[in-house]
Amino acid sequence: MPGSVQSIERAAAVLRLLAVAPNGLGVADVGNALGLAKTTVHGILRTLHQVGFVEQDRSGAHYHLSDAFGRLGESYLDPNELRSRAINWADSLAARSGEVVRVGRLVDAKVAIVHHVFRPDDSDQDLDVGTTLPPHATALGKAVLAYDASGAARPKRLEAFTTRTIIDAPRLAEELAAVRSRGWAGEFEEHTIETAGIAAPIRGLGGLVVGAVGLTGRIERVCDSRMKHRPDLVAMVRATAEAIARDLRGDS
Amino acid sequence: MPGSVQSIERAAAVLRLLAVAPNGLGVADVGNALGLAKTTVHGILRTLHQVGFVEQDRSGAHYHLSDAFGRLGESYLDPNELRSRAINWADSLAARSGEVVRVGRLVDAKVAIVHHVFRPDDSDQDLDVGTTLPPHATALGKAVLAYDASGAARPKRLEAFTTRTIIDAPRLAEELAAVRSRGWAGEFEEHTIETAGIAAPIRGLGGLVVGAVGLTGRIERVCDSRMKHRPDLVAMVRATAEAIARDLRGDS
Repeated sequence: MPGSVQSIERAAAVLRLLAVAPNGLGVADVGNALGLAKTTVHGILRTLHQVGFVEQDRSGAHYHLSDAFGRLGESYLDPNELRSRAINWADSLAARSGEVVRVGRLVDAKVAIVHHVFRPDDSDQDLDVGTTLPPHATALGKAVLAYDASGAARPKRLEAFTTRTIIDAPRLAEELAAVRSRGWAGEFEEHTIETAGIAAPIRGLGGLVVGAVGLTGRIERVCDSRMKHRPDLVAMVRATAEAIARDLRGDS
Repeated sequence: MPGSVQSIERAAAVLRLLAVAPNGLGVADVGNALGLAKTTVHGILRTLHQVGFVEQDRSGAHYHLSDAFGRLGESYLDPNELRSRAINWADSLAARSGEVVRVGRLVDAKVAIVHHVFRPDDSDQDLDVGTTLPPHATALGKAVLAYDASGAARPKRLEAFTTRTIIDAPRLAEELAAVRSRGWAGEFEEHTIETAGIAAPIRGLGGLVVGAVGLTGRIERVCDSRMKHRPDLVAMVRATAEAIARDLRGDS
């Protein structure tokens, strides 16, 4: 990569043109202004559309800055979209693992559950969608917290749920570094006695972590005889997160 | 180019991370969050800095969104920077061509003169810096107007300065299309009798036209015997614009 990234320079130039075009601009307008081929401009506009920075008018002929561009700090991803992309993959993970599967995202320093697949047996279970989990005490939480660059989502007070909950900030920082290095998060009686969990981050466009998917179940099923998270389940969870991410990014 | 431009996706993700990090983020913070190598993140941040979207703190260790990012519609280029980059090249053009050289930029549908080199003779001349020219009636103006995608800078009323001034909007649109296709603008008694001019656009980062440089002089010096703009002067003006642009973009 050279000192500067040409496509980013061009995208910035396109955004500046759109910022002064209240009626939007077509591909040819942008190409004329920047001296770029239409195919190049089209690729840039399509990407800016995908990341939510620009919108198309109803005819599709004109692009303008999106309202959301002025509120970049908000999640670019509608939780319903995360949920709808995750449903099939989460169902499949629950079926293959035999465990509860949940999809969550960070909202105000909590993990909000956007999708929940019951354990595939006939037991009584409550739907968790709409409830929240503590991010420092759950695999699902640690899988998103590990990628929260600003630290804004880290709970101010690390509440203990069991004697195994991580309540020491430096210890939590170490744990999150380990999550990043492994690419998945484990939970071992940190939130609920006799329960373990495995979760992996879901990366949207540009690598932005937009949520996590994970399973939880009884320790003797989720962990092996040495009390380690079962590698086959870890691989399933990670593959599920990657499949949801691919769908979200629109990769073919 | 594939359906989407990866570096633009990553830049968008970086901007979103910075939008929720009031204290800024370091290269490692961003790399950890997005799962990208430090060198990759550094290239993206450097480019976002160059285009004016992010700033560094005094130590250079942290990046944050720039204030100007919220005001994208404003020119990203300080007129003083355009002037300081143009000075040497404009001087050289005046010396070689023997004509008046001016550098201008669009401000509120006028061409504001940011730099003016007198014709290198002993004649009395007034400094034009700080004055404006009508964009539709001058080479300098047409060289920037041709790349105004939104049309916002096009004068509402096309005032006639001579009988040759273009005062018909469709005719002006044709002329601007010709400027784009040639890459330079000519002026022939459209603003001042017996005066001709040649100007070329200055493209900043991403291709954004940030101003123009041009010369003006008596017709018999600027045009050839067939009343065409002299090709040697056209080449000089275009090379000057390109040299200023390279300096502005920081190309080596």
